[in-house]
Amino acid sequence: MQALVSIIMGSTSDLPVMEKAMAWLDEHNIAFEVNALSAHRTPQAVEQFARTAQERGIKVIIAAAGMAAALPGVIAASTPLPVIGVPIKGMLDGMDSLLSMVQMPPGIPVATVAVNGAMNAAILAAEILALSDPDVAATVANYKASLGEKIERANRELSNLDYKNKV
Amino acid sequence: MQALVSIIMGSTSDLPVMEKAMAWLDEHNIAFEVNALSAHRTPQAVEQFARTAQERGIKVIIAAAGMAAALPGVIAASTPLPVIGVPIKGMLDGMDSLLSMVQMPPGIPVATVAVNGAMNAAILAAEILALSDPDVAATVANYKASLGEKIERANRELSNLDYKNKV
Amino acid sequence: MQALVSIIMGSTSDLPVMEKAMAWLDEHNIAFEVNALSAHRTPQAVEQFARTAQERGIKVIIAAAGMAAALPGVIAASTPLPVIGVPIKGMLDGMDSLLSMVQMPPGIPVATVAVNGAMNAAILAAEILALSDPDVAATVANYKASLGEKIERANRELSNLDYKNKV
Amino acid sequence: MQALVSIIMGSTSDLPVMEKAMAWLDEHNIAFEVNALSAHRTPQAVEQFARTAQERGIKVIIAAAGMAAALPGVIAASTPLPVIGVPIKGMLDGMDSLLSMVQMPPGIPVATVAVNGAMNAAILAAEILALSDPDVAATVANYKASLGEKIERANRELSNLDYKNKV
Amino acid sequence: MQALVSIIMGSTSDLPVMEKAMAWLDEHNIAFEVNALSAHRTPQAVEQFARTAQERGIKVIIAAAGMAAALPGVIAASTPLPVIGVPIKGMLDGMDSLLSMVQMPPGIPVATVAVNGAMNAAILAAEILALSDPDVAATVANYKASLGEKIERANRELSNLDYKNKV
Amino acid sequence: MQALVSIIMGSTSDLPVMEKAMAWLDEHNIAFEVNALSAHRTPQAVEQFARTAQERGIKVIIAAAGMAAALPGVIAASTPLPVIGVPIKGMLDGMDSLLSMVQMPPGIPVATVAVNGAMNAAILAAEILALSDPDVAATVANYKASLGEKIERANRELSNLDYKNKV
Amino acid sequence: MQALVSIIMGSTSDLPVMEKAMAWLDEHNIAFEVNALSAHRTPQAVEQFARTAQERGIKVIIAAAGMAAALPGVIAASTPLPVIGVPIKGMLDGMDSLLSMVQMPPGIPVATVAVNGAMNAAILAAEILALSDPDVAATVANYKASLGEKIERANRELSNLDYKNKV
Amino acid sequence: MQALVSIIMGSTSDLPVMEKAMAWLDEHNIAFEVNALSAHRTPQAVEQFARTAQERGIKVIIAAAGMAAALPGVIAASTPLPVIGVPIKGMLDGMDSLLSMVQMPPGIPVATVAVNGAMNAAILAAEILALSDPDVAATVANYKASLGEKIERANRELSNLDYKNKV
Repeated sequence: MQALVSIIMGSTSDLPVMEKAMAWLDEHNIAFEVNALSAHRTPQAVEQFARTAQERGIKVIIAAAGMAAALPGVIAASTPLPVIGVPIKGMLDGMDSLLSMVQMPPGIPVATVAVNGAMNAAILAAEILALSDPDVAATVANYKASLGEKIERANRELSNLDYKNKV
Repeated sequence: MQALVSIIMGSTSDLPVMEKAMAWLDEHNIAFEVNALSAHRTPQAVEQFARTAQERGIKVIIAAAGMAAALPGVIAASTPLPVIGVPIKGMLDGMDSLLSMVQMPPGIPVATVAVNGAMNAAILAAEILALSDPDVAATVANYKASLGEKIERANRELSNLDYKNKV
Repeated sequence: MQALVSIIMGSTSDLPVMEKAMAWLDEHNIAFEVNALSAHRTPQAVEQFARTAQERGIKVIIAAAGMAAALPGVIAASTPLPVIGVPIKGMLDGMDSLLSMVQMPPGIPVATVAVNGAMNAAILAAEILALSDPDVAATVANYKASLGEKIERANRELSNLDYKNKV
Repeated sequence: MQALVSIIMGSTSDLPVMEKAMAWLDEHNIAFEVNALSAHRTPQAVEQFARTAQERGIKVIIAAAGMAAALPGVIAASTPLPVIGVPIKGMLDGMDSLLSMVQMPPGIPVATVAVNGAMNAAILAAEILALSDPDVAATVANYKASLGEKIERANRELSNLDYKNKV
Repeated sequence: MQALVSIIMGSTSDLPVMEKAMAWLDEHNIAFEVNALSAHRTPQAVEQFARTAQERGIKVIIAAAGMAAALPGVIAASTPLPVIGVPIKGMLDGMDSLLSMVQMPPGIPVATVAVNGAMNAAILAAEILALSDPDVAATVANYKASLGEKIERANRELSNLDYKNKV
Repeated sequence: MQALVSIIMGSTSDLPVMEKAMAWLDEHNIAFEVNALSAHRTPQAVEQFARTAQERGIKVIIAAAGMAAALPGVIAASTPLPVIGVPIKGMLDGMDSLLSMVQMPPGIPVATVAVNGAMNAAILAAEILALSDPDVAATVANYKASLGEKIERANRELSNLDYKNKV
Repeated sequence: MQALVSIIMGSTSDLPVMEKAMAWLDEHNIAFEVNALSAHRTPQAVEQFARTAQERGIKVIIAAAGMAAALPGVIAASTPLPVIGVPIKGMLDGMDSLLSMVQMPPGIPVATVAVNGAMNAAILAAEILALSDPDVAATVANYKASLGEKIERANRELSNLDYKNKV
Repeated sequence: MQALVSIIMGSTSDLPVMEKAMAWLDEHNIAFEVNALSAHRTPQAVEQFARTAQERGIKVIIAAAGMAAALPGVIAASTPLPVIGVPIKGMLDGMDSLLSMVQMPPGIPVATVAVNGAMNAAILAAEILALSDPDVAATVANYKASLGEKIERANRELSNLDYKNKV
């Protein structure tokens, strides 16, 4: 199956966070690939990846990095594809990676999600794919419709709490 | 012409920032609409806008807001379309609007760009449209190829600086 | 008994924090209801809740949320009732939810208390109810008068500490 | 006319910010008084004010302060009335006064609004008064209903912007 | 023995931090007293304490508090004695209590030390007492002279580390 | 007249801030000296100053610095006298100089006041001198007693504001 | 003259800050070159620059950038030369560019100086060159010896200030 | 063997962090020495160390400190050698030590690396030594070439992850 989403991380230490993106895409039948690349340790591999991603059929790139998180911006510099950035929490509560991603200079946007927000990166990728893929569009529509269910379950739990002044 | 991008702002005071997005889309022949909506002042209008945006032909939504910037998240809650958030700088250097947008809970992503990063929001919208629109794809490719020119102009300026120890 | 205070939380993961509000109201015989609602996952339920809270007899709403905490502001947009916001601590020490609540734009206030300050939210609700309810007024007066006791107990403990140069 | 809201500020330098609260209350026919008091310069006057506010007929207190903004908390310590805090922006972008107000310890809540959010403090006071005053209730209902109008005016302005690719 | 230093804390939960101040004073034979007082829970006791501290023979006050840490400032408002503030670390890394203490308005200084810096508060108190007490002056001189010893011990430990390229 | 307070600043650019300390001491007849010293540019002069300050009759040192504000800590390392630190606001809103002063390691306290809080440094110095100098004690007592006057003037100004719903 | 230091900036808007580095090197007869390069707009030019800098005779690279300041890190990834980073102040007080530079992941250091600290970058470059160049070593030694003079001038200015209680 | 790098730390509590610098230098055969010195506890020893480091053959100094981390700046004030600063994480997430190091005033640079970034300090020292030492130059070149290998290992691990929609 042709991968539509390419997930890049700077090290396998990011895997516990990024598995939430992989699990979401997997569960919703969106083909993806996963690679480790580093803007600082394998700059040429990053550039080659970025330059060739589109011709290999990739539609959206998700890049995760911590600290001075240059990876998504450097990828975005060499591809016309939309790049989603996931700041990984580390020494400074993730504020360093968040600002290193979201504060991109004019011309090279990175679509940044929350610190450790890997699942939202997957959903955002699906929303983008959905614009030209009716199957993914149905998936996204169903998923968003289902979001209320967790809240309904929460309400059932809350109604069982025992407080004498609760109505 | 059918608008593909819908730009939403919370007040006309955001216009000086958001005009950079409008100017970029205009210059690159991508049809857009502009509306003022407020998550807090016109919540029903926001919800109706979000629910009907897709059927009206909108592909990407750009939402700008300052302070406790709920607008892009609330729009994202009622549409399957990708929503790009532009934090507007205000009292707390824009940190309030940045965190109010980027830290979205699981299930409802907002693709956040830099504080006051309106032009990048437009470019990100174009990158997304480019996936299914060859004209926009050509526009994005040309634009990204042109980014180096500003740097080349900068180099010409720098080479005229007069310092005796400069090579 | 008619609920006077409505406690809303975004997920049952907020329950360990919010139980301090519930316990305080319960102990002081102020009737309350508890519901899970999400500005992002169940936007229509939030709006319906907010629009009908007053006619159902609710006087004060306490809304807790973490991350990009839009919930109290979105509720405040659709009700004339006072809304108290409790920022829930998460990834960024609660600074994200605090700023997402307290920095509300002109027109729609949220009465924000401390990060994880659920008990204070309950007390503030009681202070508001006390303005038109003599029983609650007596409760608040008694409670505030009792606050010194914890300090007096602390003093008794401190006086037993054994230091040779302590008086 | 009996003042229902008491506005306290630490110095006349806070007046340009707090006049927005005064103007809103004045325009909506809610009687108020204004005093300067300082938790640090006139502690006894603060305590006497706080202890006697209720018996003088005050229902809600709005206290504004900058820097280490102890004023609203110290007032709240000596009155059962709800106290609304307005952090005034100063040397550290208002982060010092915001945290000095909102992070109140358990037992003594301060209903904190945005940095320099004086108008919202007035509206919150009105929402609280409205619970037992039908006139104020009508005022609040009308005011909240009118919030959408500013947005509608913004939309009319935006529709006159001239961009060739705008629909 | 007449207490020269009065240590005040807002709750016994501050005791593990403040015991470092008590231990230092005890070890260096400086008489002190310890009390729990709260600017928000026992405001009148705070004011009475502050007003009478000098006539009871106290020379320096050390006040510790967390969150919106008004205690040292409120004490300073009612005494001419120097007041040392110890910000206690809590929910927001101690940034809330630090700013609530150090950012005092003109007229009422609080001598603020590091977050949880209780021992330094005791040493600062001793430095102040030393100006008029030869015994304390000798103590401070000896203590400061001894500070290098810990570093010398560290050097002996470091010289035993086994690295082949270490000199 | 023997200087009792020594004011040190890192550069004459700190003078506009520090003149508030000088003016306060001058107005209250407390003899002081002023010098420029830099922990980084004149380290030996700093050390010599610190080592000899006490024998020259200085009682309290006030040291102001911006950025990585090592000056007060380095002075405190070589004198038993109490050292008051004034963080000077610069590039990062004064947060850099504040943290560089207040977060001193165990053993070497710096009594830190607010960012640009020069006048409070002078008052704190006076409070310390007052412990052993009856004239300064009278000065401090008078000054603190006078603090309420500014508030009273503020109240007279406020009572002249013209609002129809003001009492 | 062979350039030993290469100054890189992301845009000519950084020139007013970086001219302080150029002026210092010029005044101290250290040959340098200046170029504009952008990690995001001219990634291939950056990589080619970085790979060939050493063979062209460059010894130290100074790279300045604002916002998500990837430039120095990306250069450091492709050269064995020491890279000095100068964070440029922008929208978020320079905190974004500071963290984007200093928080480099293990393996690729960037020697970061203060926000807008261009002159210190030049001096640091000179200190590095001085290790193998006796002329530069003499320059650095002279410069550091001269630092005290500015302080001495400051002292002469301060001694002329007219305060009656100044010694 | 003549030590070329001198590692200084403020206390043995910094050793677990700084051992990464020592291990890297050891593994790459660069001779170093390790000492404990404190800008605040042993100021004269620091100054003597700094003044004599160069004549003892030291080329680069690495100084680690936490809190108000004056050590590297104070060393830099008394030596012409390049000084690398390692901020040690403590009470305030390392933001205090980072700002205390990186924000050095003009004239005295400290080459600051990431919070707890000890290994990068060692690599930066090697990059500086490499400019005049062919053996170290070869070491640095080999090390940088090897950085990609960790990423390649990561890729092999990632390719074994089992997800049905992974390509």
